[in-house]
Amino acid sequence: MNYSMIRYILGQIFKVEAALMFVPLAVSLYYRDEGMVPLLAVMIPLGFAGCAMTARRPEKQTIYAREGFVIVAFAWIFLSVFGALPFVISESIPNFIDALFETVSGFTTTGSTILSDVEALPMSLLMWRSFTHWIGGMGVLVFALALLPSGSAQSMYIMRAEVPGPSVGKLVAKTQITARILYAIYVFFTVLEALLLRLTGMRWFDCIANAFATAGTGGFSVLNQGIGGYNNVWVEVIITAFMLIFSINFNLFYMLLMKQFYDVLRNVEIKVFFAIYLICTLIVTFNIMSMYNNSFSHALRYAGFTVASLSSSTGFGTADYTQWPVLSQTILILLMFCGACAGSTGGGLKVARVMILFKSGVSELRRQINPKLVSTVKLEGQVVENEQIRTQGAFFVLYMAILLVSTLLLSPDKYSFDVSFSAALTAMNNMGPGLGAIGPYGNFGGFTAFSKLVLIFDMLVGRLEIFPVLVAFMPRTWKKA
Amino acid sequence: MNYSMIRYILGQIFKVEAALMFVPLAVSLYYRDEGMVPLLAVMIPLGFAGCAMTARRPEKQTIYAREGFVIVAFAWIFLSVFGALPFVISESIPNFIDALFETVSGFTTTGSTILSDVEALPMSLLMWRSFTHWIGGMGVLVFALALLPSGSAQSMYIMRAEVPGPSVGKLVAKTQITARILYAIYVFFTVLEALLLRLTGMRWFDCIANAFATAGTGGFSVLNQGIGGYNNVWVEVIITAFMLIFSINFNLFYMLLMKQFYDVLRNVEIKVFFAIYLICTLIVTFNIMSMYNNSFSHALRYAGFTVASLSSSTGFGTADYTQWPVLSQTILILLMFCGACAGSTGGGLKVARVMILFKSGVSELRRQINPKLVSTVKLEGQVVENEQIRTQGAFFVLYMAILLVSTLLLSPDKYSFDVSFSAALTAMNNMGPGLGAIGPYGNFGGFTAFSKLVLIFDMLVGRLEIFPVLVAFMPRTWKKA
Repeated sequence: MNYSMIRYILGQIFKVEAALMFVPLAVSLYYRDEGMVPLLAVMIPLGFAGCAMTARRPEKQTIYAREGFVIVAFAWIFLSVFGALPFVISESIPNFIDALFETVSGFTTTGSTILSDVEALPMSLLMWRSFTHWIGGMGVLVFALALLPSGSAQSMYIMRAEVPGPSVGKLVAKTQITARILYAIYVFFTVLEALLLRLTGMRWFDCIANAFATAGTGGFSVLNQGIGGYNNVWVEVIITAFMLIFSINFNLFYMLLMKQFYDVLRNVEIKVFFAIYLICTLIVTFNIMSMYNNSFSHALRYAGFTVASLSSSTGFGTADYTQWPVLSQTILILLMFCGACAGSTGGGLKVARVMILFKSGVSELRRQINPKLVSTVKLEGQVVENEQIRTQGAFFVLYMAILLVSTLLLSPDKYSFDVSFSAALTAMNNMGPGLGAIGPYGNFGGFTAFSKLVLIFDMLVGRLEIFPVLVAFMPRTWKKA
Repeated sequence: MNYSMIRYILGQIFKVEAALMFVPLAVSLYYRDEGMVPLLAVMIPLGFAGCAMTARRPEKQTIYAREGFVIVAFAWIFLSVFGALPFVISESIPNFIDALFETVSGFTTTGSTILSDVEALPMSLLMWRSFTHWIGGMGVLVFALALLPSGSAQSMYIMRAEVPGPSVGKLVAKTQITARILYAIYVFFTVLEALLLRLTGMRWFDCIANAFATAGTGGFSVLNQGIGGYNNVWVEVIITAFMLIFSINFNLFYMLLMKQFYDVLRNVEIKVFFAIYLICTLIVTFNIMSMYNNSFSHALRYAGFTVASLSSSTGFGTADYTQWPVLSQTILILLMFCGACAGSTGGGLKVARVMILFKSGVSELRRQINPKLVSTVKLEGQVVENEQIRTQGAFFVLYMAILLVSTLLLSPDKYSFDVSFSAALTAMNNMGPGLGAIGPYGNFGGFTAFSKLVLIFDMLVGRLEIFPVLVAFMPRTWKKA
């Protein structure tokens, strides 16, 4: 284990987080709110610690998969702990576990909140809360890779551990350039969304905060009433469009830039994703029509937004789907499992992974009739290797195991089975709301501290796709090779 | 596809079913109830059809995995359809879908009922209902193999498709002898249980019916109040013991017979099964103690029975666990997933399969650190081959896919999410009761005909462990090679 390199990269991440806090600090200066002192109280020591840890470049810079997992897991834990401190110090969320829950929910782009009145937060911390979505969406280590001269040729291991999806395609040979391209696309769409929202007459603060929350497919809102609070159909249309955009594999946008239109058209995952979106929207629309005076357009407005919100794992709300018929609620739960496209900021199992799993299931059925059959699973025209199928199978097993054990650990809490099950599910898929008391207009404040810790673990495991977190805490990882 | 062989073996099964109906017929003669005419009305044509289909032995007797799956899937469907007819003809369950649900629930050893008043059934049909558990538990094709001169050397394909568990070990070289040994053990324990129950003062009819239902880990009761209706602690202790016995891999009993005590002691699956049983019983006992006047012994009595009932997938009830705290209910749901040991009459994923899945997950975590590692998964001291791991992974994916899609298909029904989810889960795992309205003192009568068909499919898929049913309906199976 290359400890010096772990120390060095974590130091860089500390510096990056301190720097990123300039965004809420600027908001604090503009609104002259009480967030300034708490932010500075975290930024200054964090910046110093970061500088101290990066003062000496390690001699041996080689890292492997093992270090990649450890760095990513610890970077996210530290990020969340330090990110939670301004809430605690400012006493806007005095309880540390609550503040940690809120921050992990932010960075992991889950968007579950323990707050019943978000509007009571100082503007600066409200912005920090939404900004964590944006940072966590594309990944803070990817961000560090894009900005800093990493020097390490093995930074791919870090990127692979942080970017969601069954496989990470390098766009170009150099990891740093890939990271920069991804962030450029990310910034472009975020700015575009903020500008479009501004055209609806939304105040700048909300435009930016909502764009951050959409870009990360997070779902924190700056209004107690969520996106429904704007009561503006254009706001909903724009956000629906961008929730879907941020659910798409970013590689496709790069291909568009490179004018590889044919490759984009040939992509199967995006077709499946949009097919699921359209079919589910239609079913939900017809299912809820009777609740909206039998108006197709009204029902479509709420169904289209909510299905996009859950498909993309954003979790924004314009309607309280916990009041919808059970069919619609079950569809929304299945969408949580499925999630967005690989290589996007969205959560869930990811469409590509679901496709690999499903195809390997069918291929196994074929092998039952003819065991000698060399049955190959193809995705995007390429053969998925047996290793990959096995990894995805194991991923799914671990995913279900964590989901079920978490449900069990949440069950002593005061809620019914569907609430604890949907809490674990929504946390693991970085969705946001669940069923019953934790619906889009409910909150997670009622859970015990123990349940919140379970959900914090689930959110991190979900965002980092299981392996990094489990590997980092496996004794074998820390043994001498 | 060897059609003549399929016809021939299905014919044999028809004859076997007609013969098995002599058991309820005898009950009907003894009690002089109205079941006689309906039973004869099915037995006579069924017997004739069977004889006609088996009049000519096929020239080519070779069958392969493909035919094995098709035979097993169709045998079970026909068995259920004919088995349902006496209920319809006698008008004790006038609706055919309801009668089919009850019969499939019987044969698949699920034990879910659509009846609110089982005591209203004629004694003969009540016995037939419990007897279907016994027939389905070990498998009707295995029964046919044991009895009839099969002549076919490939009967292993049939046995493999019908006996639950990730792998079927032949006890001896000849399939027919293996089938006979299994049935001998099965009959022995069934008779033993009936005799022990008789010692408690239970009437003979109930002793036999309850022994049938326990042996198949089915769960149909002949009293409206279930096993709780006897209000006798010895009845509960005996049934608890036998529910656990019938959850054990039958190969172990054979090993005991062969005096291979060391092999039995070394078996890991049974240790894990009993460890799960003990731990869950203890947790549930403490969790429900406050509901039983803080009496440990009272709580233990209900927890011990219920946990055995759900671990073994029997589904007998002495207490209404839907009134228990959510923690206990969640434990019971996890037990449904896990199920009994492979090679027993119990349902669920099976402990051995869960162990393979879990170990392959852990082995994959190790491979993440060191991709070159040739990580092997071991079970019972033997290396589990990669093929097998892939098959079990695919099995789990198909299992979860069917579970979730079934939940979706059940959701338009009038029940809440936890009821439809637990209905699909209990059906697929051949458990019996679920949560809410379908708890141990509820019934499935409130579901629509469509929902009942979905659950019928789930019960068959669960009992035959997915592959046979799906393979039989795959177009590729029916194509010329």
